[in-house]
Amino acid sequence: MPSGRRGNFAVGTPVLEAARSLGVYVESVCGGRGICGRCQVTPAFGAFAKHGIEAKPENVSEVSSTEQRYASKRSLAADRRLSCSTQILGDMVIDVPTDAATNRQMVRKRAEVRDIARDTATRLYYIEVEQPRMDEPRGDLDRVLEALTREWGLRDVRIDYPLLPRIQKILRKGDWKITVAVHHDAQESTLTAAWPGFHETLYGVAIDIGSTTIACHLTDLMSGETVASSGVANPQIRFGEDLMSRVSYVMMNEGGEVALTDAVRGAVGELIERVTTEAGVTAEDIVEGVFVANPVMHHLFLGIDPTELGGAPFALAASQALTLPARELGLASMNVGARVYLLPCIAGHVGADAAAVALAEGPSSDDEVTLVVDVGTNAEIILGTKSRTYAASSPTGPAFEGAEISCGQRAAPGAIERVRIDRETLEARVKVIGSDLWSNEKGFEAETKEFGVTGLCGSGIIEVIAEMFLSGIITTDGVINAGLAETSERVVMDGRTASYVLWTGDIEMRITQGDVRAIQLAKAALYAGCRLLMDKMEIAKVDRIKLAGAFGNYIDPKYALVLGLVPDCDLAKVAAVGNAAGTGARMALLNRGHRREIEEKVRRIEKIETALEARFQEHFVYAMALPNKVEPFPELAKVVDLPAAEPGSADAPNDGAPRRRRRRRPT
Amino acid sequence: MPSGRRGNFAVGTPVLEAARSLGVYVESVCGGRGICGRCQVTPAFGAFAKHGIEAKPENVSEVSSTEQRYASKRSLAADRRLSCSTQILGDMVIDVPTDAATNRQMVRKRAEVRDIARDTATRLYYIEVEQPRMDEPRGDLDRVLEALTREWGLRDVRIDYPLLPRIQKILRKGDWKITVAVHHDAQESTLTAAWPGFHETLYGVAIDIGSTTIACHLTDLMSGETVASSGVANPQIRFGEDLMSRVSYVMMNEGGEVALTDAVRGAVGELIERVTTEAGVTAEDIVEGVFVANPVMHHLFLGIDPTELGGAPFALAASQALTLPARELGLASMNVGARVYLLPCIAGHVGADAAAVALAEGPSSDDEVTLVVDVGTNAEIILGTKSRTYAASSPTGPAFEGAEISCGQRAAPGAIERVRIDRETLEARVKVIGSDLWSNEKGFEAETKEFGVTGLCGSGIIEVIAEMFLSGIITTDGVINAGLAETSERVVMDGRTASYVLWTGDIEMRITQGDVRAIQLAKAALYAGCRLLMDKMEIAKVDRIKLAGAFGNYIDPKYALVLGLVPDCDLAKVAAVGNAAGTGARMALLNRGHRREIEEKVRRIEKIETALEARFQEHFVYAMALPNKVEPFPELAKVVDLPAAEPGSADAPNDGAPRRRRRRRPT
Repeated sequence: MPSGRRGNFAVGTPVLEAARSLGVYVESVCGGRGICGRCQVTPAFGAFAKHGIEAKPENVSEVSSTEQRYASKRSLAADRRLSCSTQILGDMVIDVPTDAATNRQMVRKRAEVRDIARDTATRLYYIEVEQPRMDEPRGDLDRVLEALTREWGLRDVRIDYPLLPRIQKILRKGDWKITVAVHHDAQESTLTAAWPGFHETLYGVAIDIGSTTIACHLTDLMSGETVASSGVANPQIRFGEDLMSRVSYVMMNEGGEVALTDAVRGAVGELIERVTTEAGVTAEDIVEGVFVANPVMHHLFLGIDPTELGGAPFALAASQALTLPARELGLASMNVGARVYLLPCIAGHVGADAAAVALAEGPSSDDEVTLVVDVGTNAEIILGTKSRTYAASSPTGPAFEGAEISCGQRAAPGAIERVRIDRETLEARVKVIGSDLWSNEKGFEAETKEFGVTGLCGSGIIEVIAEMFLSGIITTDGVINAGLAETSERVVMDGRTASYVLWTGDIEMRITQGDVRAIQLAKAALYAGCRLLMDKMEIAKVDRIKLAGAFGNYIDPKYALVLGLVPDCDLAKVAAVGNAAGTGARMALLNRGHRREIEEKVRRIEKIETALEARFQEHFVYAMALPNKVEPFPELAKVVDLPAAEPGSADAPNDGAPRRRRRRRPT
Repeated sequence: MPSGRRGNFAVGTPVLEAARSLGVYVESVCGGRGICGRCQVTPAFGAFAKHGIEAKPENVSEVSSTEQRYASKRSLAADRRLSCSTQILGDMVIDVPTDAATNRQMVRKRAEVRDIARDTATRLYYIEVEQPRMDEPRGDLDRVLEALTREWGLRDVRIDYPLLPRIQKILRKGDWKITVAVHHDAQESTLTAAWPGFHETLYGVAIDIGSTTIACHLTDLMSGETVASSGVANPQIRFGEDLMSRVSYVMMNEGGEVALTDAVRGAVGELIERVTTEAGVTAEDIVEGVFVANPVMHHLFLGIDPTELGGAPFALAASQALTLPARELGLASMNVGARVYLLPCIAGHVGADAAAVALAEGPSSDDEVTLVVDVGTNAEIILGTKSRTYAASSPTGPAFEGAEISCGQRAAPGAIERVRIDRETLEARVKVIGSDLWSNEKGFEAETKEFGVTGLCGSGIIEVIAEMFLSGIITTDGVINAGLAETSERVVMDGRTASYVLWTGDIEMRITQGDVRAIQLAKAALYAGCRLLMDKMEIAKVDRIKLAGAFGNYIDPKYALVLGLVPDCDLAKVAAVGNAAGTGARMALLNRGHRREIEEKVRRIEKIETALEARFQEHFVYAMALPNKVEPFPELAKVVDLPAAEPGSADAPNDGAPRRRRRRRPT
């Protein structure tokens, strides 16, 4: 149980052996020696009428001395047995636990809890190796490989070169008992590491190389737990803030790609060292790394000149998933035999990070049309059902991240993240990162004194523009109503255009016409990408929207819909899903089945290149309007009072006429 | 023809395709584009009654424009056709040539000519790769691999990392037509190198790392020809003249193995550069290296501390054959993707060099019992038939190489290599390296003036001791007859023992009692090893003896038998076979079938450790006598007048009493 598999075995057969011959996965590192305790099972007793079985206690062998020894050293629950030293003496029913103590693990990551079944590419095998004899002069390695065959049934394992000069000393230090790590991939099994004696710690890192930030999760491969997480700024920023300026740097500077590669690899190395130190883990125990990145970062990390990604046809050097020795990529802060897995890239603009998002959050059923958007400097868009999936990348630019906005800043204490504008007075109240109080609440000043109110971060930008729209300060076309300057102190003229005065503290913050335009351009690109995929799929409505990434995590879905970042959808079905790229990387780290899954998925995904599609430009133009002029938004209208469309602007090109509730404009 | 395979094919099928579907190997690099010319065949015409075939000229398609173009550029014999552009139009008979122009190649190495069928582990494949398209955004590498599948049927090929950052530029330089090198081994196929356009040069090196000398043969993998050979002194000599002193150096000096590894790898790298320059070959075109070495050199080349080989049980770190990237071994003077293959080691004292000898010269039939000896500082001994083979190593020491001999020297101009002693006068005449004249012939002095007569090299040592024995100067027990000092100027007293005055030129050379003892010890070790294997095989006589290596190449087999280096054998069946280790290395370089063959052979060889065998010591003691006291030597006695045994010394332990022809002792 719970697999329900049954079989007949000779009296005296160990339960572990019976489970294996039935194809039930019960983990073991020590190979049935009662050392590792990972093969725990719970015998069930009583009459199982359905199966015609009477599971009597005497049908299970008595607790062995091996189990007693294990229990005294490491503790063993009363109902648990080590299946390796429990024999079948008659009919029995065995529960294979799926709890934290053994096979499956709960992985906690910020808010989301994720159940990732472990089936790691690298596994530990404890072996007892025959000692060398003069009359039987096979080499030590040959006897190691023979033990792997004899004790574990592994064949055709080859040794990773750096281990070769070390194997003799490890064998002698462990007195011919050693634990080896074997990396399994589709083509081959490789002996990558070894430790004297019994060894049961094994770690991996899941790393997301972003243009701005590199994030790393150090994960215990034996439990599935993330034991330390950390991030570092991508030092390539000194070569160019955005991806294209880095590609330009490489084009303009001989050997530029080497400098960029060294920078990112150096940062990754330091980051691994940091999490390793933080968690008190030995670098030798890190045997796997999974990397996700956008195509330019993917190439630069691999030492590939990204020039081809700088212009049409945006040819990737390699799009397939890659498994490589970490040392070939200059990663020294792991075991010298560690293996690195890079998820496949989907297209020239849709990278391995998007593949990780698709793995973690991509459509998983055929019943719901799911839209996943991951907003960064580019937005990755994945749309579809389990059997039919589309992907594209849309050039949103950095406006959503606070760049190109006059008072924009990165998310940090003091940054405005929430905005509400009074529909009548046009006065704004805000919330800043670092305080739970609204600015008009008592104590706000005291709480924010330390860091002040310094600028607008991504979610604040979305909210202020949306609130300005909902308050009638800007029109559907995105024009700040200069007429309001006459009636409100909040709207002032900045030359020929008007600005909205959001904040008047130590720093005065205004939302300029240029700021509104920047957000319009960004959101139009995102929306047009989504819409294009809907056209391809020939659907008019999506059932579920997942907002991935840091940006998606902090924006209020309602405001995303008000601005028209994404197509209309039942607000209850729009949700942030957190760091989906990181989750996807951890899934590939913990389970090689997920590697095959995303490789297959990426092959099947229909890749849409926005630049090739005339419809994209068309959607883009109409999507400049708030929320847009492409589709009606009945779902949104159910929950938000939308301003009326201006006379003469209801010229949406699609057949369904926008149904906007008329509302009195503020005077 | 000549395979005799037959089949039915649709009219219009290219001959190349038909051959492949019949499993007949016809080489092609360009994949049937009429560029490489390697798929040449000869149609035969006329009535083939036995097969019921009338092969009419009109059944073969006319010479195509492709063939005309090829013929005009590269020449094509009148009877030859390119099988890729020759279609089957009716019954035909096709000869697949095995001559030098195409598949099989004659490899010339010193005296021996060797026919090594080529089936290299690394092969070239010319492919035309689809160009990238924005609407089909797979990576360039993915389209390369797809072309390999589409055009060559290769699947699951993985890329070697260093090629990854280079593949895009190569594709564009070749205008999407490239030639790739794929390395195939038992487990996987790896894309290791690529060139723009059509490329048809490919080289490999076969390297024998000896304790004293490192030898390298640069081989054209497309023709099988050795295009340059060179040797260099092993620079490890500065850490110790013999293997055991080098092992001691490592034991006594922290990091000593690193210094020794660096030394041998540096020398190998320089040697490869030298042959490459000599042959005018590009380092990029060298994609394979095959290495043979004794166990200590094998380990030091691999960066393995050889300490375990310094004492019982003489445990090898690895005995199996190894395939490794050359760059992991610090070899930079080859293609960065080059692969290195090391033949398996047979035992702690019997290395990959012995395996190479077994591959090249080991017993190949069950009809003859063959003994192969390769004499260096240790002697490798291989005995048996095709189905039952024994191997051992015997500690001969360096006496045969001229060390430990008072007037010994390495083989070089001026070294005495031939000696004849007049049975009556005891006067010696000699030949030296660098002259074809005997020392008593006219012109000898003039011819040798430049270098003089400077010492005794290995073959000279064997001859002088054997001639001293045949002349009665030394007894069967190896004692120089001091009594002769009274009657001959040639025998003089050196303290309590006598010496033989071999040469009285500028330098006087004496063969001392110590010299005789050194040779006795060395030859007794070699003989006892051979005899031990004969005991194991339960045979009394060998049918054929092959003397491998430089030493075996220069000694006169007759004198080897007189001294009793090897067991008695029909002198006509005793022959030098040259550099068998080098030949074996070249075989493994040119044909991966030979790799599997020697791996399998080494698994089956029965390894005998002389140190464990009481019989070895017993044989050793009796083998100190000349020729020995273990066996009779009827075959030798047929061709050589052997001195009578001294009274009281005919105490050989074996049942057959020695039949020595009585002969008058010199007075």
